[in-house]
Amino acid sequence: MFINNAVTDLFEIEYPIIQAGMVWVSGYRLASAVSENGGLGLIGAGSMKPDLLREHIRKCRNATSKPFGVNIPLLRGDAAELLDATIEEGVKIVFTSAGHPGKFIEKLRAADMTVVHVVSSVKQGLKAQETGCDAVVGEGVEAGGHNGADQITTLCLIPQLADALEIPVIAAGGIADGRQILAALSLGAAGVQIGTAFAATVESSAHENYKQMVISSKDNDTVLAFRRIGLMRMLKNDFAAKALSAELNGESEENLREILGRKREMTGIFEGDSREGAMEAGQSSGLVKELLTVEQLMRNLIAGFDSAAMVVQKMI
Amino acid sequence: MFINNAVTDLFEIEYPIIQAGMVWVSGYRLASAVSENGGLGLIGAGSMKPDLLREHIRKCRNATSKPFGVNIPLLRGDAAELLDATIEEGVKIVFTSAGHPGKFIEKLRAADMTVVHVVSSVKQGLKAQETGCDAVVGEGVEAGGHNGADQITTLCLIPQLADALEIPVIAAGGIADGRQILAALSLGAAGVQIGTAFAATVESSAHENYKQMVISSKDNDTVLAFRRIGLMRMLKNDFAAKALSAELNGESEENLREILGRKREMTGIFEGDSREGAMEAGQSSGLVKELLTVEQLMRNLIAGFDSAAMVVQKMI
Repeated sequence: MFINNAVTDLFEIEYPIIQAGMVWVSGYRLASAVSENGGLGLIGAGSMKPDLLREHIRKCRNATSKPFGVNIPLLRGDAAELLDATIEEGVKIVFTSAGHPGKFIEKLRAADMTVVHVVSSVKQGLKAQETGCDAVVGEGVEAGGHNGADQITTLCLIPQLADALEIPVIAAGGIADGRQILAALSLGAAGVQIGTAFAATVESSAHENYKQMVISSKDNDTVLAFRRIGLMRMLKNDFAAKALSAELNGESEENLREILGRKREMTGIFEGDSREGAMEAGQSSGLVKELLTVEQLMRNLIAGFDSAAMVVQKMI
Repeated sequence: MFINNAVTDLFEIEYPIIQAGMVWVSGYRLASAVSENGGLGLIGAGSMKPDLLREHIRKCRNATSKPFGVNIPLLRGDAAELLDATIEEGVKIVFTSAGHPGKFIEKLRAADMTVVHVVSSVKQGLKAQETGCDAVVGEGVEAGGHNGADQITTLCLIPQLADALEIPVIAAGGIADGRQILAALSLGAAGVQIGTAFAATVESSAHENYKQMVISSKDNDTVLAFRRIGLMRMLKNDFAAKALSAELNGESEENLREILGRKREMTGIFEGDSREGAMEAGQSSGLVKELLTVEQLMRNLIAGFDSAAMVVQKMI
């Protein structure tokens, strides 16, 4: 994989592979390891207060001299503070998700930030481009955690985004191996964002139980629940079964919110409650087979890409 | 596109592009046009009685000397008669779906048939291989019409099927352009099956209203409904809205069956009732932009594949 394109240029990285900023998973250890290995690591601010984010940014900078970024879910009440912390700590790359970056764009531009927004439809992609984002992550419904209501899959979303936008498109959702990276580039993406596979690495701060659940899961071991109050993809367990059955029975939004409760993601991903926690993970879980270090995973991704490319090259 | 692989060999065709056998859409006109243009056309027996199927097979043979096949949904009460008609008329390729080919395999083998089964999970794929099928179609949840309960997307399903099976895997679900064919081959498929894009061609027997709805639809214009009684993907209209809202409200199976009613697909696809019919279509609808002949569509698919291959080749 010797790729020199809009995404490697934009972030000044070796491989167009971005590690998704994930709650309870991607602190400075994971992000710095990904950046050190030639990808782009993102600190997931979604489960951090501004002070903790500052700490992770500083530790990340100590751990790597290479570029890294911060992911900020804009629906958080303190999104502005998280953005300020990111800017003040001198990070130059921010990925925004869950919301719209419009009201922050001037401040981000003034701070000379590279801004990437996560979208799940063509309409959202056009809006992000119009707002002035430098690139978008097109995230298909395969992705773990929160999902766009339109439920568009990566295979269908990426070519339509590539047709509609002039800014680079980064493919996300369901990607965990090198063949899929080649597929994403075939569809018109200039890079990929990978979540679940990185969440199950040694350097991820997810609980061991979470990593083992991802590793042992099969092709059909995730569910998409809570359509009524905001779609969430997670591994099957008691909590997921309860959520699905409540949905089938037509429970009210209020009851669904009660079933969801508070801090389910922390309980699952960080504390390792494999029955009652929300074990958010993508449909790519079935492709994750063993506990690897980030270095090993990056090596596998690149080798998988290269051997898929050789197979395809013989065909074309 | 000069591809010589397990799928082109198996069916003795020029391009590894198969036109899905679809109810009310793929009679002899569509199937023969696809085969004439170097792909594999399939007559969709799902909306035919055995005598009508015989008629279509004969007309198809008059229209093309190239190989074509028949798709038979095995859950139909008269599946055995449809299979007998297919065998007696001398067709050598059968695609089976919606059910399990186990109880028919000996008869099919005795008739020297090439048998391909449509699967939507790795477990189903392994079972089809064990039964003695020559290949599988791995169909992702992007696909129009009836869908597997596991809702696995094409991007995630195909590499897992390719890893698990020794027989060739044909990718289906969400594929409507050449970039996606290249993506499918990158994922480990040896060919693709395309439904919606062919359903919207001149030679398809779908109603003009259906074709126009596919052509004018955007990325987010399909829904997946009836989880409780058998998932169905279709274009948004009054009927789809009713189905979705009934599902959200937790209606009983009985009520859902009543909402579904009878012959919804015929009403929609064949008779063109764009409000109350089931306009079954895949999530690829957003990629279908104009009414084309099969010849034009095949040319576009191949040109799109070739130009995506050129772009990717520069990268690898």
